[in-house]
Amino acid sequence: MEVFEGAIDRGLEGIVACSTGISSIVDATLTYRGFNIEDLADHSTFEETTFLLWNNKLPTEMELTEFQKKLRAQQVISDPLLERLKELPTDSVHPMSWLRTAVSIAGLFDSTADDISIEGQKDKAFRLTGLMGALVAAFERIRQKQDIVKAHPDKSIAWNFLYQLKGETPDEEMVKVFDTCLVLHADHELNCSTFASRVTTSSLSDIYSAIVSAIGALKGPLHGGANEQVMRMLKKIKTVDAAKEWVTEALAQKKKIMGMGHRVYKNGDPRAKVLRKMSESLTKKVGKGHYYEMSALIDETVKEKKGLLPNVDFYSATVYYSMGIPLDLYTPIFATSRISGWLAHIMEQHTNNRIYRPRGQFVGETHRTWKDLKDR
Amino acid sequence: MEVFEGAIDRGLEGIVACSTGISSIVDATLTYRGFNIEDLADHSTFEETTFLLWNNKLPTEMELTEFQKKLRAQQVISDPLLERLKELPTDSVHPMSWLRTAVSIAGLFDSTADDISIEGQKDKAFRLTGLMGALVAAFERIRQKQDIVKAHPDKSIAWNFLYQLKGETPDEEMVKVFDTCLVLHADHELNCSTFASRVTTSSLSDIYSAIVSAIGALKGPLHGGANEQVMRMLKKIKTVDAAKEWVTEALAQKKKIMGMGHRVYKNGDPRAKVLRKMSESLTKKVGKGHYYEMSALIDETVKEKKGLLPNVDFYSATVYYSMGIPLDLYTPIFATSRISGWLAHIMEQHTNNRIYRPRGQFVGETHRTWKDLKDR
Repeated sequence: MEVFEGAIDRGLEGIVACSTGISSIVDATLTYRGFNIEDLADHSTFEETTFLLWNNKLPTEMELTEFQKKLRAQQVISDPLLERLKELPTDSVHPMSWLRTAVSIAGLFDSTADDISIEGQKDKAFRLTGLMGALVAAFERIRQKQDIVKAHPDKSIAWNFLYQLKGETPDEEMVKVFDTCLVLHADHELNCSTFASRVTTSSLSDIYSAIVSAIGALKGPLHGGANEQVMRMLKKIKTVDAAKEWVTEALAQKKKIMGMGHRVYKNGDPRAKVLRKMSESLTKKVGKGHYYEMSALIDETVKEKKGLLPNVDFYSATVYYSMGIPLDLYTPIFATSRISGWLAHIMEQHTNNRIYRPRGQFVGETHRTWKDLKDR
Repeated sequence: MEVFEGAIDRGLEGIVACSTGISSIVDATLTYRGFNIEDLADHSTFEETTFLLWNNKLPTEMELTEFQKKLRAQQVISDPLLERLKELPTDSVHPMSWLRTAVSIAGLFDSTADDISIEGQKDKAFRLTGLMGALVAAFERIRQKQDIVKAHPDKSIAWNFLYQLKGETPDEEMVKVFDTCLVLHADHELNCSTFASRVTTSSLSDIYSAIVSAIGALKGPLHGGANEQVMRMLKKIKTVDAAKEWVTEALAQKKKIMGMGHRVYKNGDPRAKVLRKMSESLTKKVGKGHYYEMSALIDETVKEKKGLLPNVDFYSATVYYSMGIPLDLYTPIFATSRISGWLAHIMEQHTNNRIYRPRGQFVGETHRTWKDLKDR
């Protein structure tokens, strides 16, 4: 067997693991199914984008209506599931650990959980994409000891998330911005959590297992946790005046600045540009413009001194903060969006599957001789 | 960035993902930490082997005693966890989905779940390796509506698994054979579930998330489900007389025969040799020798006609069957053993981490032009 060692211990950087028709990143351009991310951010919705990711085409009006109806119907948490969720600990529990558990339990209540036929995959795709935002909102309500808010089955995932989180009809601009955030986060080629979902899928495991793996991978601070860290950083810096000194000092000390740089985009993350505009407008609308100003200043300084550009996490922090979303829900929201991409990748993996089984290069001692316990 | 496309869509076959000092497979020889698997099967125990996997040395008597004490203390399921587990559905639930969920819930009850410091890793390693067998046994007791059996903290994981499963003091030969099975399954380089645990770990996610990913990956029939399928095959064939015809027919129809062949071992799986002996002795002891005879006949025929050799799953089927273990617990038992290897790999990943983020090769349509809904 041929063995390629060129990427050892580099996190498979530069290794093409599979062919994909879902998203592509070329020369700092991100496309979903061949459509530019800026076009999708400007014109599409999360639900339409999900249709596109799963079906490789834009829906007709009739297709979109039917698709939305099926997806929106899945935003409801069944009573037996909700009962179990209410019994889970929430104190000092990471929301992503809770979400991982909630999805895993949801799988136990799905009598066709192990159906990975094409129809089964589609069924789980609707179920899980519809459910995810409802679960995240339920987590917040449960830990705040508030009643669960049931979704409106005629409203979008973005609308319902904000509604289920806060228990009141959300502001339409907020819904629009939040929906665009979901579009921007929906897919990103073989990022770590998407890759995790494909690895789990590749043993022909079920879709719940694949999504649970993805949630677990996204949980890690090197992956999904960055926008939360960006906001914690901004809250620590406090003022625009302090930001310049803080960033200069941080750069001098070679500290990693959260939300800056990307392994794949060397010339800037196109999603950050869209998010920057939304951050500016939304922070000002809610009287938190100084957080945008601090972000912009840090952005400019890091660009000037280090040549690093903001990634998707940098401005999404202030966008979510402006919506009054608790900081530790930023990563669960990421999951609420990325699940559409995970499912596209899971379905694609099934079309041309081979189990992921790379090799390790053994670097330990060899030919060691057994010694009985008493002789050691 | 350099890009390597040589293994595209081949499940990363032949790609060296990382260096490792844990196990190696060279020329059909499997070693753990440089010790031959046959030596470990003959002389070691699962607990000692776990010490070896985690510490890269054989323990002294004092080290082993202390290690066993710490590990065995973790075989108890806490009352709050047990309460939640009893509330989970078990009807038509895949045992691995239940186990995935149980470990995920266990994480919510661990207030230091997110501690991935070296001390934290070790703490979780003991906790999860001790807990796994207890969870699998609890699943069986709960679905049979039997009382949970509490582990003896002075008895081994192998002893306690059989004890907790059946509620009676296990036969010492069974315990020895079961313990050897755990040794044989403990690690196997970058198999799919181990790789999954490293991928999840690589975002610096927590250990529970990594183990949950691994359980999900192991669940798939291309990975952990094979020994169960072997036993189902044998039960369908029923008699030694029917076996010859069955296997000839299956080969003629180019059907895949479960438990035969391995991507990495082309010259035979060394674990199968050890398991074959145990299968012969144990099946005869319990009056089920015909299952061994059928297995041996299939083994010989497939070798003769196809040149394929049995892998670890082929004879472990009849070994577990002889112990009266329900068929659908074979994969959870695999997890009960492999968790020691998963944890060794998780800890190793932490020593030299980079997030796993391979590339996809985009093969879809590009430069598609946005069309508004009404124009489609």
